[in-house]
Amino acid sequence: MTRVAVDAMGGDRAPEEVVAGALEAAADGIEPILFGPAGLDTGDLELVETTQVISMDEKPAEAVRAKPDSSLVAACRAVGEGNADAVVSAGNTGGMLAACFLELRRLPTVARPAIAVVIPAKKGPSVLIDSGANADARPEHLLQFAHMGAVFAEEVLEIRDPEVRLLSIGEEPEKGNQLTLEAHALLAADEGLRFGGNTESRSLLLGAADVVVCDGFTGNVVLKLLEGTIMTVLDALREEIVATRRGRIGGLLIRPAARGMRSRLDPDTYGGAYLLGLRGLAVIAHGNSSPLAIANAIRLAARGVEHDVVGRLAQRLPERVLASARSEAPGK
Amino acid sequence: MTRVAVDAMGGDRAPEEVVAGALEAAADGIEPILFGPAGLDTGDLELVETTQVISMDEKPAEAVRAKPDSSLVAACRAVGEGNADAVVSAGNTGGMLAACFLELRRLPTVARPAIAVVIPAKKGPSVLIDSGANADARPEHLLQFAHMGAVFAEEVLEIRDPEVRLLSIGEEPEKGNQLTLEAHALLAADEGLRFGGNTESRSLLLGAADVVVCDGFTGNVVLKLLEGTIMTVLDALREEIVATRRGRIGGLLIRPAARGMRSRLDPDTYGGAYLLGLRGLAVIAHGNSSPLAIANAIRLAARGVEHDVVGRLAQRLPERVLASARSEAPGK
Repeated sequence: MTRVAVDAMGGDRAPEEVVAGALEAAADGIEPILFGPAGLDTGDLELVETTQVISMDEKPAEAVRAKPDSSLVAACRAVGEGNADAVVSAGNTGGMLAACFLELRRLPTVARPAIAVVIPAKKGPSVLIDSGANADARPEHLLQFAHMGAVFAEEVLEIRDPEVRLLSIGEEPEKGNQLTLEAHALLAADEGLRFGGNTESRSLLLGAADVVVCDGFTGNVVLKLLEGTIMTVLDALREEIVATRRGRIGGLLIRPAARGMRSRLDPDTYGGAYLLGLRGLAVIAHGNSSPLAIANAIRLAARGVEHDVVGRLAQRLPERVLASARSEAPGK
Repeated sequence: MTRVAVDAMGGDRAPEEVVAGALEAAADGIEPILFGPAGLDTGDLELVETTQVISMDEKPAEAVRAKPDSSLVAACRAVGEGNADAVVSAGNTGGMLAACFLELRRLPTVARPAIAVVIPAKKGPSVLIDSGANADARPEHLLQFAHMGAVFAEEVLEIRDPEVRLLSIGEEPEKGNQLTLEAHALLAADEGLRFGGNTESRSLLLGAADVVVCDGFTGNVVLKLLEGTIMTVLDALREEIVATRRGRIGGLLIRPAARGMRSRLDPDTYGGAYLLGLRGLAVIAHGNSSPLAIANAIRLAARGVEHDVVGRLAQRLPERVLASARSEAPGK
């Protein structure tokens, strides 16, 4: 049984809907362990009692330091101490990052852990990395994100020899800002990557590449814009449709098609994002996660454990970094 | 009559569809003047003969320097020399920027011209600035973009006392990267702006603010992602709908509603973006502009001339910059 520590107090709809999601996921060889206050009704799931709570708007680093027995920090510690295989929280994202850095620690070869999220692109799933862990990044960090994303695409999405592209403002190598220009050169020189050059954001939802690399500020803006735009377009269309009688009848007829697409594009379907580069597996779920989103985040965590994402990263990243170091110094 | 210089050879569909768009716009007091090769059929519109063409993939600065008699550069020069009131091109964007800097020159108070584009948000039009002129920008540039965007919103969109927000990865002032953290402090301290704090990309299409400020890399990624996502979602929905007989019937019934929304969100409806901060008015149209998009870009240019956007920027920007300087040194 894969044991997944779940922060029962994390997220806008905690604890009720988090518990509901955990109960939904408690099957298929997954054993969610809830972290929350004494007396919390967790059905037949194990509860680890915690005495503190980190709210959504607390300052991350301070909150994590001040509240070692919060549900968030305790759930992360359970993975660090080997009492759980992975951790899931829909709580304060910055808090989750800080708690993971503290309790799980970085893999020795990783300079900067990064958030990898799966985009439900039309051509198939695509990994966007970093989608928010590093608001400022250097070119060599982007190179590591590329390697982590490639390992993730290979191991979890089972994409053989994934193509990596750099998100920029033009496909030509000379289009971009200082960061992408320098990162482009590093990526292009790396023999361990199948680098396809730059990609524009225009084609992200269509399927720009198996792995799309960017700094965490850009990635976070992209992720939120994707989610917001998809929902705004579908809502606006629904409003236009229900405004006329003819439209309402048509709307009933297209409902199955619209539902299918909405569910494919709904972030709840994916549930969460991996925080990669640590010695343990962590999944960051949406702040306003529904029970379905929580259940899917727990399933995502379990899948990562089954595929031993952390082990494979630890194993393959040094090779890749070595290969990259070799390719940077061809004459030596 | 407002005279708008049009680069007939700019864009993926040039020259035929550019000429068609110019013919469509030649009404309502607008006089398009086409710049292109001798013999080009421009109907009853004036043709200024040029001997060179800058293609979409040429290196901007070099191309502009090497081809002073290209349709793009000559059209810009017509404005600089007072032979036209504004210029429109759907050609090489970098080339357009370089030609404008060369032929139109900056306003004396502007450090960095910026591209302002109107986003068709649900709550009403919203100005995104900079959407691509400056891939790298400093905090004080973002402050100037904010002022230019506010003047644009007031004068062209007729929004009284527009609210300005800074695009970042969280609404709290401490969320962001180094650039936005510093820019936030400058914006908040400026008494000449109605600054509403940070906004997230999630709400851009809903209507985050009257003016949304960011660096040109982020703005360009945002703009292209918005356009790409809207089109991908609508196309995917259509595919799901036509996949079943029931869906096809429903699709016919909702067609008017879907068309209404598609046209509201279609970038062709806006036609182009203003390049602000120069001594003349320039509109950059989409590379794959349709005749409708070209016509609307020409109308946008004419509206900017009627509202004397350049004059008002020249007039109001010094006041605003002065006000901002005052607010930075309250004790002096």
